[in-house]
Amino acid sequence: MVDILHRVGVKTPQPEKVYDALTTIEGLAGWWTEDTKGSAAEGGVLEFRFLPGGFDMEVVELRPRERVSWRVVDGPEEWIGTTVDWNLRQDGDYTIVLFRHQGWAAPVEFMHHCSTKWASYLLSLKSLVETGEGAPSPRDVPISDWH
Amino acid sequence: MVDILHRVGVKTPQPEKVYDALTTIEGLAGWWTEDTKGSAAEGGVLEFRFLPGGFDMEVVELRPRERVSWRVVDGPEEWIGTTVDWNLRQDGDYTIVLFRHQGWAAPVEFMHHCSTKWASYLLSLKSLVETGEGAPSPRDVPISDWH
Repeated sequence: MVDILHRVGVKTPQPEKVYDALTTIEGLAGWWTEDTKGSAAEGGVLEFRFLPGGFDMEVVELRPRERVSWRVVDGPEEWIGTTVDWNLRQDGDYTIVLFRHQGWAAPVEFMHHCSTKWASYLLSLKSLVETGEGAPSPRDVPISDWH
Repeated sequence: MVDILHRVGVKTPQPEKVYDALTTIEGLAGWWTEDTKGSAAEGGVLEFRFLPGGFDMEVVELRPRERVSWRVVDGPEEWIGTTVDWNLRQDGDYTIVLFRHQGWAAPVEFMHHCSTKWASYLLSLKSLVETGEGAPSPRDVPISDWH
């Protein structure tokens, strides 16, 4: 099993803003993909759609301002059964976001792509909270022929 | 042992441009850090310096347009002994870059940071080759309090 790891610091005195961007349909649509539907409550399933396809995430755990945990229940084969964890903590002027997309069966080329793409979306999340403007799909930053 | 993985596609018909950006002092200074010195030849040591410190990389392997491999010989404790591998291949209009920073002893918070930061520098490399303008240190994109 191999994992994707990232860390960004969102410059805000209000960690709830980062938490809201991870736990509301409007917030998620502001940095990951505009086409976000479903239930954001614990036990709900979030439906994220992109041009080539999408992901369904079960919301496994919600701890306000501290932790959000998803399990991938539908999407590309390599994603199914993996987990996406967000750990937040306030450190001075920053809400520190520790991101882990865990449980990949193998370090395939698609995993390399997703790692870089996640980094780009984390910077979109940071921008959304700091400036009010993210870069969600389909307005996201292209990183390769795979977009 | 845990690894950082990334993939970008640089839109260029000339993979040697990407290779040059990884194997010349001028190229490396154009996307990673302006303060790059040392020897870029096989067996040489490249000295990359940033505001808080830097990395010395032994150039372990150079295969034109295909592969560049470095071993970290000095720098932060967590980096020493790790390897940084760049695999290139031409795929239509794109030079595909598969990046691996391998051999981290543990998935510490600093590794999360470096993963996101590498993604940002890979997009800087892509921009350098595609547009002539990268974002090397100290003009790099800040991602947190750790920069």
